[in-house]
Amino acid sequence: MNKIAEKTLKSKKILICMHVDPDGDTIGSACGLASALKKLKKDVELYSSSKIPDIYKFLNYAEKVKHKIEKTKKYDALVALDCADSKRIPDFEQLKKQCKIIINVDHHIDNSLFGDINFVKNISSTGEIVYELIKMLKVEINKDIATALFSAIITDTGNFRYSNTSAKVFKIASDLVEKGANPHFISTNIYESKTMAEINILATALNKIKIVFNGKVAYSALTKKEIDKAKAIEENMSSIADFVRTLKGVEIAAFLRETNDGKIKINLRSKNRNVRIIAKELGGGGHTKSAGVIINCSLNKAINTLLKTIKNKWKQL
Amino acid sequence: MNKIAEKTLKSKKILICMHVDPDGDTIGSACGLASALKKLKKDVELYSSSKIPDIYKFLNYAEKVKHKIEKTKKYDALVALDCADSKRIPDFEQLKKQCKIIINVDHHIDNSLFGDINFVKNISSTGEIVYELIKMLKVEINKDIATALFSAIITDTGNFRYSNTSAKVFKIASDLVEKGANPHFISTNIYESKTMAEINILATALNKIKIVFNGKVAYSALTKKEIDKAKAIEENMSSIADFVRTLKGVEIAAFLRETNDGKIKINLRSKNRNVRIIAKELGGGGHTKSAGVIINCSLNKAINTLLKTIKNKWKQL
Repeated sequence: MNKIAEKTLKSKKILICMHVDPDGDTIGSACGLASALKKLKKDVELYSSSKIPDIYKFLNYAEKVKHKIEKTKKYDALVALDCADSKRIPDFEQLKKQCKIIINVDHHIDNSLFGDINFVKNISSTGEIVYELIKMLKVEINKDIATALFSAIITDTGNFRYSNTSAKVFKIASDLVEKGANPHFISTNIYESKTMAEINILATALNKIKIVFNGKVAYSALTKKEIDKAKAIEENMSSIADFVRTLKGVEIAAFLRETNDGKIKINLRSKNRNVRIIAKELGGGGHTKSAGVIINCSLNKAINTLLKTIKNKWKQL
Repeated sequence: MNKIAEKTLKSKKILICMHVDPDGDTIGSACGLASALKKLKKDVELYSSSKIPDIYKFLNYAEKVKHKIEKTKKYDALVALDCADSKRIPDFEQLKKQCKIIINVDHHIDNSLFGDINFVKNISSTGEIVYELIKMLKVEINKDIATALFSAIITDTGNFRYSNTSAKVFKIASDLVEKGANPHFISTNIYESKTMAEINILATALNKIKIVFNGKVAYSALTKKEIDKAKAIEENMSSIADFVRTLKGVEIAAFLRETNDGKIKINLRSKNRNVRIIAKELGGGGHTKSAGVIINCSLNKAINTLLKTIKNKWKQL
């Protein structure tokens, strides 16, 4: 049996940790694993330093996520899900002292292997790895587990559209649907629960798209004023960069906006180029087709820096 | 062996017909079946009364589709794909005279069974039925067939988001990917080949969304002038209604616009209600979650008629 499954089975009190600004993959993986460990009678707690976006509240355990862990608490194991680096868990150094063993489960190619045990594979999603792990633990997948893992997988495959969507991903999806995951119900919650603020900010962003580099790069940049006018908050803007990428011929898409603390957040998306190189160059990270960075300058300066970096690195992307 | 497979195998010269205003299901099914029949050395022609939208031009055979059939030509069989009624093929009465047998392959629940043989099943897509048919014909699925059928299936399942997305659909998708279908390549062509006209008309439509009936119904209505200003054509507007449906709490979404010949085209979408009843009432048709109609009146009159009909029929939907 795999070492990680063995260690998990030996642990009694387990803390499952998500990354900062949690997305569907880290949340779905955490909720799915929590449901599975509960079936093994484990004492499980879920932790996220940031708020869980409303669209994931339908998942079992999502409402039970803790945002603060008392410093006196002790755990047999900390399971980090979907975290390329321990820095993705802001309180990691403190939590590490409270947990006997760190288990690192992730699918990012550049994972820093910060765990005592690392279960890192370069596949579609952490959800797909947790699916494997649950099989290793010999837990029968029920509707709650299936729903959570399905949510994790669709988040990181762009609902079966990205190049990490393998035949195996579809095989797993088929199994999860057989075990009770309802694709329509899940995708309605995740993709069809938009607020008018989300629609308004998307319309604003679409009206401001600029196309450069002979149609190969497109971006939209919004000021704090424009965001406030649409009454939009950060989680309303998570899919705008994906939308910019849907333009024909566009190979790299970017969405930039002023944050509440005066910095510039940039989401990068690509069809076939490696935008992780761009993000890394600017001090950020992520996947080859989806990466991001926050930089400290004006919006116009950020646009210029981004375009210059894309131009300089183009041949390597 | 199934009667339809038997008749197909006996036919030598086959005319494959798509429905008017062809979508990915009818086009993908036609291209996939054509590739399969070619492997059986059949003499195959594809016919569509209307233009094939550019986003499907990547499919093998899509560029070979005929838009006119000479009246002197004779065929052993006409295979109608994804046509609920023979009226969906404008030249059907003439073509019928030129073909020995009519084979009707479709997944619409209200199919009028107009064929000499009807292969009608209430499943995800005509693509899923053609997959079964190709298995019956014992043709090995190659990359071209897999790509075409995958395209058909994603079109009518909303890329695996609608309630017709069964465990079996995912099993078939897995098989098609194994046989060479590339989800990223296909979805980039279909969903990420938007023109600026498409982006502009979407932004215009999003800015005009009206929410009624306590947030349960949302619609957007565009005049011919607004459409012309965005330089949009009919195929640029096919996904706007889907977008309106993404609003949280919205059960029925509608998109109305003035057509070139002064009529009003309405697309209806729902999360859980039956919009086919609304479309039928107004003289149109379609599926329970996706239906449509063209009516002859002013835009304001159309909005009023639509809202009144939804109100009157609400309890049955």
